[in-house]
Amino acid sequence: MTVTTELALGIDLGGTNLTVALVDGAHVLARRSDATPTGRGGAAIVDALRAATDAVLAEAAISRQEIAGAGVAVAGLVDAARSRVTVAPNIGLRDVPLAADLARALGMPVALDNDSNAAAWGEFRHGAGQGLDECLVVTVGTGIGAGIVLEGRLRRGGTGAAGEIGHLCVDRGGLACKCGKLGCLEQYASGSALVRNVLRTLHADHGDHTAGLRRRVDASPAGLTGSMVTAAARSGDEFARAQIAEVGRWLGLGLAEAVTLLDVSVVIVGGGVGSAGDLLLGPAADALHQALVERSPMPEVVVRPAALGNDAGVVGAADLVLQVSPARVSVS
Amino acid sequence: MTVTTELALGIDLGGTNLTVALVDGAHVLARRSDATPTGRGGAAIVDALRAATDAVLAEAAISRQEIAGAGVAVAGLVDAARSRVTVAPNIGLRDVPLAADLARALGMPVALDNDSNAAAWGEFRHGAGQGLDECLVVTVGTGIGAGIVLEGRLRRGGTGAAGEIGHLCVDRGGLACKCGKLGCLEQYASGSALVRNVLRTLHADHGDHTAGLRRRVDASPAGLTGSMVTAAARSGDEFARAQIAEVGRWLGLGLAEAVTLLDVSVVIVGGGVGSAGDLLLGPAADALHQALVERSPMPEVVVRPAALGNDAGVVGAADLVLQVSPARVSVS
Repeated sequence: MTVTTELALGIDLGGTNLTVALVDGAHVLARRSDATPTGRGGAAIVDALRAATDAVLAEAAISRQEIAGAGVAVAGLVDAARSRVTVAPNIGLRDVPLAADLARALGMPVALDNDSNAAAWGEFRHGAGQGLDECLVVTVGTGIGAGIVLEGRLRRGGTGAAGEIGHLCVDRGGLACKCGKLGCLEQYASGSALVRNVLRTLHADHGDHTAGLRRRVDASPAGLTGSMVTAAARSGDEFARAQIAEVGRWLGLGLAEAVTLLDVSVVIVGGGVGSAGDLLLGPAADALHQALVERSPMPEVVVRPAALGNDAGVVGAADLVLQVSPARVSVS
Repeated sequence: MTVTTELALGIDLGGTNLTVALVDGAHVLARRSDATPTGRGGAAIVDALRAATDAVLAEAAISRQEIAGAGVAVAGLVDAARSRVTVAPNIGLRDVPLAADLARALGMPVALDNDSNAAAWGEFRHGAGQGLDECLVVTVGTGIGAGIVLEGRLRRGGTGAAGEIGHLCVDRGGLACKCGKLGCLEQYASGSALVRNVLRTLHADHGDHTAGLRRRVDASPAGLTGSMVTAAARSGDEFARAQIAEVGRWLGLGLAEAVTLLDVSVVIVGGGVGSAGDLLLGPAADALHQALVERSPMPEVVVRPAALGNDAGVVGAADLVLQVSPARVSVS
């Protein structure tokens, strides 16, 4: 009997961990995560991905012949034709033909893309963007990134760097960014900005309203994380909520710049800080609409939460390889 | 004998004047301009355009049957399917089916677009963008507008409002814009900003370095215009040059936002202030490259002057109708 498979591998290649997932549409059937062997070149990455792939396929009792291909979401810059990693500082790769190398190692088609693009594509195809023709998908994690889908296609840009929303200047002459510029959105609307703001206030202020988060910080010598603040906010801590609202306001100001240029009607927000939901999205939408006040004859831009959580990247990467390499026919 | 015509009408429908031009590629063969009958509805506009069209065709001794169609560049918001004018405050139109009305009156296919989009398309097809796959085209006149061409297609946006570069916020809490917001690029990088800056300095400063422009202002009771400043700068007036350089620096900061989001590699600058050439574009390119410092592994973004001058809009509009309505075959 011949059947058509739409099974694909979605790979998330980050600066700390790599994840190989067996993906069917929006569903992750199996996954394996390992530490990324950073700074040891493309061959070490390919070896690690092959080992993780073997483990995932063995666990799922599936052969390579049943897989349409592998899509890789890379934490770095990927060239426009998506065959090479241009530069991925946190992984230690520069100008590596990862698609060809990995395709040879895995024996299947491989598509590469930037991690923000893959996550955006995942939400567009199988998450909060289903049924839309276009959307902007913003991931607010430790940093902030975006993927742009226009008229059903990813906008990758001439050098693969489109959607660098974190380096829009939202505060001229403002906070120093690690990129060397001042006032970048990432310094105001990201998990690291949230943590910095909370710590600064805790150090400066001994009032009762910070008591809840202060206990959490005291209980965690390793330091405060964005998800600790998000959790505190969700459980009702007013101070944490105010801090997340402030991040949301800056996020809205950044979104206003993107909407002014692109004229997209739907913005989807995901990532760790994005999981704060309305506590973040409410202030973000208010600031966005306020900044777009001159658009009065036009429908309001919708800001909605992402639907796929941490799986957006692997779901999107898997779907991207199906786009360039249609489902194989296999015999079962 | 049957011949294929690529002759089309390019129409510039502005808030002060309307121009109907007979266009062959980049060449305007004949043109007629009249005052725009503002505030009298769509029928008055159609009548005026029909009269101007008749005059142009009579002058060129060409029949309507030899024309592929008419493209109209509207100073206002045009809907995505480009059949209606959504709102054009300076012309006094709101939700008018101008394409159908004008097609009926002229007896030929009609395409509508926003004036910034039409000018961008003109430069892309027949001007400084020829041979490129994509570009951002910015027109710096009294105000500032942009058209975006990505992968060979105009990015119009969900509501036809893409490319509103003049309302990017480049100076949070800065100068008040007529749109109601603070710090919009148009208040820093436009002909009106140039004139305002010059007048402010002339009033505040009685030093010798303003003497040249002061004489011009004194000689022109009707007031200073952007083109007077541009002309003074081109003839060597150092004060005028410094004022244009300041506008250029802000222009570059605005362009940096657009390039950060879109990752386009070529920016084309036209319009009245754009005619200052390197006096504007040099400082703009410097500010842009400075603001994109983190893009080091990537090729530098090129900033170049527009090539079509004031004809960009009618050339682009004429070409746009050829895109949707391929050249007719006519008998001659």
